[in-house]
Amino acid sequence: MRSAINSPSYHVPIDGFSQIIEAPSVGRTLHLSGLTARTSTGEMVGPGDMRAQASQVLENMEVILEAAGATLDHVVSIRTYVTDIEAYPEIDEVWREAWGAVWPASTMVEVARLWDERQMVEMEAVAVVPE
Amino acid sequence: MRSAINSPSYHVPIDGFSQIIEAPSVGRTLHLSGLTARTSTGEMVGPGDMRAQASQVLENMEVILEAAGATLDHVVSIRTYVTDIEAYPEIDEVWREAWGAVWPASTMVEVARLWDERQMVEMEAVAVVPE
Amino acid sequence: MRSAINSPSYHVPIDGFSQIIEAPSVGRTLHLSGLTARTSTGEMVGPGDMRAQASQVLENMEVILEAAGATLDHVVSIRTYVTDIEAYPEIDEVWREAWGAVWPASTMVEVARLWDERQMVEMEAVAVVPE
Repeated sequence: MRSAINSPSYHVPIDGFSQIIEAPSVGRTLHLSGLTARTSTGEMVGPGDMRAQASQVLENMEVILEAAGATLDHVVSIRTYVTDIEAYPEIDEVWREAWGAVWPASTMVEVARLWDERQMVEMEAVAVVPE
Repeated sequence: MRSAINSPSYHVPIDGFSQIIEAPSVGRTLHLSGLTARTSTGEMVGPGDMRAQASQVLENMEVILEAAGATLDHVVSIRTYVTDIEAYPEIDEVWREAWGAVWPASTMVEVARLWDERQMVEMEAVAVVPE
Repeated sequence: MRSAINSPSYHVPIDGFSQIIEAPSVGRTLHLSGLTARTSTGEMVGPGDMRAQASQVLENMEVILEAAGATLDHVVSIRTYVTDIEAYPEIDEVWREAWGAVWPASTMVEVARLWDERQMVEMEAVAVVPE
């Protein structure tokens, strides 16, 4: 599982939020491209529905990690780009199912646009599978 | 060369796109700052011309990697910030020349602005040179 | 200290700017979440004051790194998201105190919004503590 380090001198009002994740010192490092809500046929899921898109992004992350012999538990760091950060609570719900008690190191920003105009959320990640 | 892992359960309609790049497990890890279209004298190349700027950014990436004993083939991950994502096809052309058959893990977003207002594209990267 | 590599064929008009930082090849890799200007009680510092917020973000980075047995000198890479990139000179002042002579690999972009509307700057980082 993820190894989190938190300081009492800094507080983020999000349950499970990790200030620092220490990656396993020896292992396979996987760099994941920005993942969208597309399916195996390239079709966009859930236009206008942040929860549906976030859910599909996480599902995609899971299946491509699986292809690399890894799981969501190996994710040490994520970056999340959204087109409407007010919809964060919908992503939060999806993440609580995905990450368990200890979240990866996480940054989220609202950007001006993602490539496909229907895309509302894109996530990239780094995962490390310990040896 | 880059070692890509792709799942048939997720599809991105871009030829050469890598879902996951696995970094060499032992090697020198190089973190590249966000690179702009400046020259050796700090002059901005190609204002208003995305293709020219993307090309200069890649040229800069190549020369600074060379200074570190690395090449574009060692790049495992890139992040690309643009001020107009509609111009992506012009960047795509430059990338096809730069990356070869297997692309680094890649994320691109449209941001509100880059530091120099004439700057239309900025790229950062991580490269790993195997031992 | 940080090990920087710079090429004479690319020039950035910022003193101390590093084109490439080579991470220690063996060590503990720490992934830091996006840090805001909150305090230990979750209160936001310096709304409307970029210098105060940047300063608090760096202070937070320092204290959470300390909790992990690391210091600002171990930071190899940062990403800085701002809501007004024109205010960069105020961040520059804070960085000159924080980084010393050699900066981490660095990228800064202006985004559309950060989660808390009062937040003007958010920074994430990767640090490597050599063994």
